[in-house]
Amino acid sequence: MGIQHTSSTSSNGTGHGLEHTQTFDPGGLFAERVASIPSSFIRDILKTTARPEVISFAGGLPNPAYFPVEDIHTATDNALRKSGRAMLQYSTTEGFLPLREWISARYKAQQGIDISPDDILITNGSQQSIDLVGKIFLDKGDRIVLENPGYLGAIQSFSAYQPRFVTAELNDDGIDIQGLNHAVTTTSPKIVSMIPNFQNPTGISYSLETRERVGDTLKGKNVIAIEDDPYGDIKFHDNRLPSLKHYLGDQVVMFGSFSKIVAPGLRLGWVAAHRSIIDKLNVAKQAADLHSNFFAQRVMFEYLSTNNVDAHIAKICAAYKHQRDVMIEAIRTYLPAGLKHTNPEGGMFIWLTLPEGTSSIALLELALQRNVAFVPGKPFYANGGGLNTLRLNFSNSDEATIHEGMKRLSSAMEELFKHAPITTTA
Amino acid sequence: MGIQHTSSTSSNGTGHGLEHTQTFDPGGLFAERVASIPSSFIRDILKTTARPEVISFAGGLPNPAYFPVEDIHTATDNALRKSGRAMLQYSTTEGFLPLREWISARYKAQQGIDISPDDILITNGSQQSIDLVGKIFLDKGDRIVLENPGYLGAIQSFSAYQPRFVTAELNDDGIDIQGLNHAVTTTSPKIVSMIPNFQNPTGISYSLETRERVGDTLKGKNVIAIEDDPYGDIKFHDNRLPSLKHYLGDQVVMFGSFSKIVAPGLRLGWVAAHRSIIDKLNVAKQAADLHSNFFAQRVMFEYLSTNNVDAHIAKICAAYKHQRDVMIEAIRTYLPAGLKHTNPEGGMFIWLTLPEGTSSIALLELALQRNVAFVPGKPFYANGGGLNTLRLNFSNSDEATIHEGMKRLSSAMEELFKHAPITTTA
Repeated sequence: MGIQHTSSTSSNGTGHGLEHTQTFDPGGLFAERVASIPSSFIRDILKTTARPEVISFAGGLPNPAYFPVEDIHTATDNALRKSGRAMLQYSTTEGFLPLREWISARYKAQQGIDISPDDILITNGSQQSIDLVGKIFLDKGDRIVLENPGYLGAIQSFSAYQPRFVTAELNDDGIDIQGLNHAVTTTSPKIVSMIPNFQNPTGISYSLETRERVGDTLKGKNVIAIEDDPYGDIKFHDNRLPSLKHYLGDQVVMFGSFSKIVAPGLRLGWVAAHRSIIDKLNVAKQAADLHSNFFAQRVMFEYLSTNNVDAHIAKICAAYKHQRDVMIEAIRTYLPAGLKHTNPEGGMFIWLTLPEGTSSIALLELALQRNVAFVPGKPFYANGGGLNTLRLNFSNSDEATIHEGMKRLSSAMEELFKHAPITTTA
Repeated sequence: MGIQHTSSTSSNGTGHGLEHTQTFDPGGLFAERVASIPSSFIRDILKTTARPEVISFAGGLPNPAYFPVEDIHTATDNALRKSGRAMLQYSTTEGFLPLREWISARYKAQQGIDISPDDILITNGSQQSIDLVGKIFLDKGDRIVLENPGYLGAIQSFSAYQPRFVTAELNDDGIDIQGLNHAVTTTSPKIVSMIPNFQNPTGISYSLETRERVGDTLKGKNVIAIEDDPYGDIKFHDNRLPSLKHYLGDQVVMFGSFSKIVAPGLRLGWVAAHRSIIDKLNVAKQAADLHSNFFAQRVMFEYLSTNNVDAHIAKICAAYKHQRDVMIEAIRTYLPAGLKHTNPEGGMFIWLTLPEGTSSIALLELALQRNVAFVPGKPFYANGGGLNTLRLNFSNSDEATIHEGMKRLSSAMEELFKHAPITTTA
């Protein structure tokens, strides 16, 4: 229902205005950038998958079964008892200092990286980190390099600043170095944005060699390297490959998030970067929403400082690893042979490539008829393409659900390929 | 401390990059808009006033003595018990439906305004409402009309979109109608932004006549009217003047906030607007940070639905009214005669005008030497001016503190006027 002028008050008009039955149309007033932000394909899909009978591999949700509800409840109780009045007041833009100290100490302990708490800004999750970095760096027409396919949320956020996207293909071992080098030398981008660990949407990780070569390619160039790392801790093996920070130092802007290791509903992430960048981000953050939720920051810090977070993360990883195994097995069991898929060593997603010439959007229609959903790959390609790809989420479904969902997907594929048969030569 | 490349990893460089002792300078990469956002004068002042011996009338903080800490604690307990797992998960961009329904019902009950819950977007407080509306409407060079003086946070947020500010003077009975009319007819602004109730920084409210004439002036014009109303409920009398919505219908974008009536640490506000605008705001909000803190939204709704909010607000109003009375009396008792000041009927601020030719920035220096602080008026003037004005906050100081602070301010003024005596003819 649009808002209507009420007849009791519209009589104030002096005759030169609209009739009160007429609706004001703001269309002509919207900024140019509004047309630049792609409408959220995923959001629209998620709406259609809200029906309880739909098995959804579409979302990017962590599994709520592993949320530490009781421990968060206890932490909240304690935080409110200790500092209830303080946590309800306005706070500083940069974020709660003990929380920034915790993040700083963790970088040091986990990865041997020195980052001062003053070089960290607490945000409302990585999505805001992306938006703020876009805001302080991107003028209209500036170039930004994205992985192809790349994170849809980044495409959306950056689009608001009307840059030109340049893409570098994502290979099985990470970003294509030749493509990256070409993009950087021919288009002088301000930013190269990367998710080196268990990327969204593909699950692909950069190999050690790729990381070194990204370092060689970007080092000393007048370009910012975003290392977005929401999934780094959600890994199915023990070794951790080095951060791009090791190769690129001050050129790197690191994003981190509590959404996958604790809970997304608390909406907390961070940016770690050189002080000169953090200073500008602070100004942008203050203009955007003053500061991140202080109540949630105090709860988060209380939780982190009174629980064994690594033991909790290990539990999540074990569960997701099993779900990954089940989904990979189901792909091999139920889906047509010859489909290409990633086999991620962490994170929450598997990437599936259908035969050339087929459409995952057409597949989605058939899948939804069978009450199973996924995200078509096309919107992850900033400059088009990827029509035959799709993303499957494995973090938010149990074993039985994965089997049933993949059987349904298999039936949808069968129907699709009846009309557009698999050609193994493609 | 800037981040330095560590020597153990810098050996990866292939020689064409920076030396590892050299620091990367991102200066040349920042977007043009970064230079447009004024650095936060208030933030800098607040830092200097953090010393406990300073009496600060500078902040814009609600009084934490009136935060409903126990009731929020109980509400949090109940929310976590009832829906702990849900409130830790990702949620919808538009916000928690029951919370939007509560806001919708309150508009109806308090002001007789029909607003569908679907025409409401939950934000991280009014500051984000401002930022998102700026983002969807303002292209570089677009005109936006602000009250003069106007809300500093709005000047900062809008600045990021590089508009041209047009100002209309704020008189004792609200925005100057001739100035508004001139601004609208000669500059074709996209937005007129107003705080009709107990404005920040002045405490001024629009009279009934001013509201009607704003309606007459803007109605039917191709312009959005922002009605920012964080203080509307913090009123020291019983009657409520009509919202601009009554006169301007769909042209009005309304901002509301829980920061002053419940607690700012929960960072929750909202935008209520025509569906076509809310749709675009949803896209911008999703790109900015996916959705507002869901944990806080569930806590807020639980608090609102199990407490007598109006009784709570009445307690705040009674306390602030007393503090306003005390500060007005202290101004008349201690400060030089002939200073002009507002006498607000609500909100949290009093606006003081020093004699022409004197500087409140010079006064601040003398005041800080005497351990009392306020905010100089200059930054509230988007296009300059106001050097002889200043803002005093009365919500966050008790009676004794107000008296002591005003005595100190009196001493600072005495010192200032020794060098630049009051001339009553100015």
